[in-house]
Amino acid sequence: MTDDMAESANLFPSVRIVLVETSHPGNIGAAARAMKNMGLTRLYLVSPEDFPNEKAVFRSASAVDVVERATVVSSVDEAIEGCHLVVGTSARERRIPWPLLTPKSCAEKVVSERRDDSDIAILFGRESRGLTNEELHRCQFHVNIPTGKAYSSLNLAMAVQVICYEILQAAEGGPLEPDWDMPPATTDAVEHFMTHLEETLVDVGFHDPENPRQLMTRLRRLFTRLRPDEMEINMLRGFLTAVNQRTRSD
Amino acid sequence: MTDDMAESANLFPSVRIVLVETSHPGNIGAAARAMKNMGLTRLYLVSPEDFPNEKAVFRSASAVDVVERATVVSSVDEAIEGCHLVVGTSARERRIPWPLLTPKSCAEKVVSERRDDSDIAILFGRESRGLTNEELHRCQFHVNIPTGKAYSSLNLAMAVQVICYEILQAAEGGPLEPDWDMPPATTDAVEHFMTHLEETLVDVGFHDPENPRQLMTRLRRLFTRLRPDEMEINMLRGFLTAVNQRTRSD
Repeated sequence: MTDDMAESANLFPSVRIVLVETSHPGNIGAAARAMKNMGLTRLYLVSPEDFPNEKAVFRSASAVDVVERATVVSSVDEAIEGCHLVVGTSARERRIPWPLLTPKSCAEKVVSERRDDSDIAILFGRESRGLTNEELHRCQFHVNIPTGKAYSSLNLAMAVQVICYEILQAAEGGPLEPDWDMPPATTDAVEHFMTHLEETLVDVGFHDPENPRQLMTRLRRLFTRLRPDEMEINMLRGFLTAVNQRTRSD
Repeated sequence: MTDDMAESANLFPSVRIVLVETSHPGNIGAAARAMKNMGLTRLYLVSPEDFPNEKAVFRSASAVDVVERATVVSSVDEAIEGCHLVVGTSARERRIPWPLLTPKSCAEKVVSERRDDSDIAILFGRESRGLTNEELHRCQFHVNIPTGKAYSSLNLAMAVQVICYEILQAAEGGPLEPDWDMPPATTDAVEHFMTHLEETLVDVGFHDPENPRQLMTRLRRLFTRLRPDEMEINMLRGFLTAVNQRTRSD
């Protein structure tokens, strides 16, 4: 991958993902993939136990560029140098409460506080015991990923995935509505269909207008809730016409 | 919720996570851990390539119970039997657009539509190529995890992590949908209706299986999107039966 390509993958050029004393190189690779999937590419490794390692390359899949360009440093101080915002991932309970963010509010903060002239760092601790208190005290905010009570220990790369996912969410904002391939049917087209349907129901002996019960009301609720498109209405009417031709030719 | 229930690992007893034809057992284990971290424990495996396997146990860490209790089935039909809501994870582009959810709106739907008497299934496809079109057409909704453009292919277990994370997020607050007056039809009831509909379309000469074009796909999209309730399915089948009686008596 060229520098240009790596650059285009990076939607958040001022955001560093910092992994502190990671034990398993596979987690480094998986974290790199999770980052790149969400448009982040600046990986910092503080004293990784076993890096470089081919397991990191393998697990990174097509994010090998993120692994290869990782900045390896020997202290958290180096990893957060030049940053104006530092957030540390943390389990819930700490002796002295610290300003605490959810993944979503963390992401909103990261996205809204990006700058051209300085960086933001998000710290992830060791697989076995997270960040030390001293490391956490270097952070302005802590972020906790909520879990079920039965099992609260996320895999390191999974935690990176959740945080990076929320960052991309916060940056893109807004729900995506799919493009539909057909225009919606007009209400009068639906009304004509309902009339046609009722006639056909009477024709085939399924509906008795003298004893309607709730049949037409329920069918009307069904087809208004459906909000059919133009082609769907045409198909449904085509079907009714085919039924009419077969039953009225008797 | 009682203390006992709060302590239980399974906060979502009616939600099935379905992995279809997973290649790598490590992904099954990592998915199980991701699930249990977020309070989900019902794992279904459709024709896994290599399972049971110790890599699944290893990667599951303390979610080995989820792996060991996984339900292994041989078809998606079996995995979604008895479900009233089926969602399939999908890349963005499909020939015929389908109702599409974000991970967040998917989670809100899953949480608000939980029932005691039937289940919800979320389908995750193969590592290499996701779910087939046929499998996706069995789903009322598709869900797409937004990514950066440079690298859009999430690891399977990472996708499970993001979806389950959003489900736990949604469960911690949020409004419920209004009560409906009828229970939802199960997907297998809808499937029987689709079969009956196709037979009837052929009967009345509206559908030529030799030249199907997109008719049945579009009708499938229509009726999966509709999410009919039990009485609606009964009415629609009653109508088809009435048509059958009139046209087959010739």
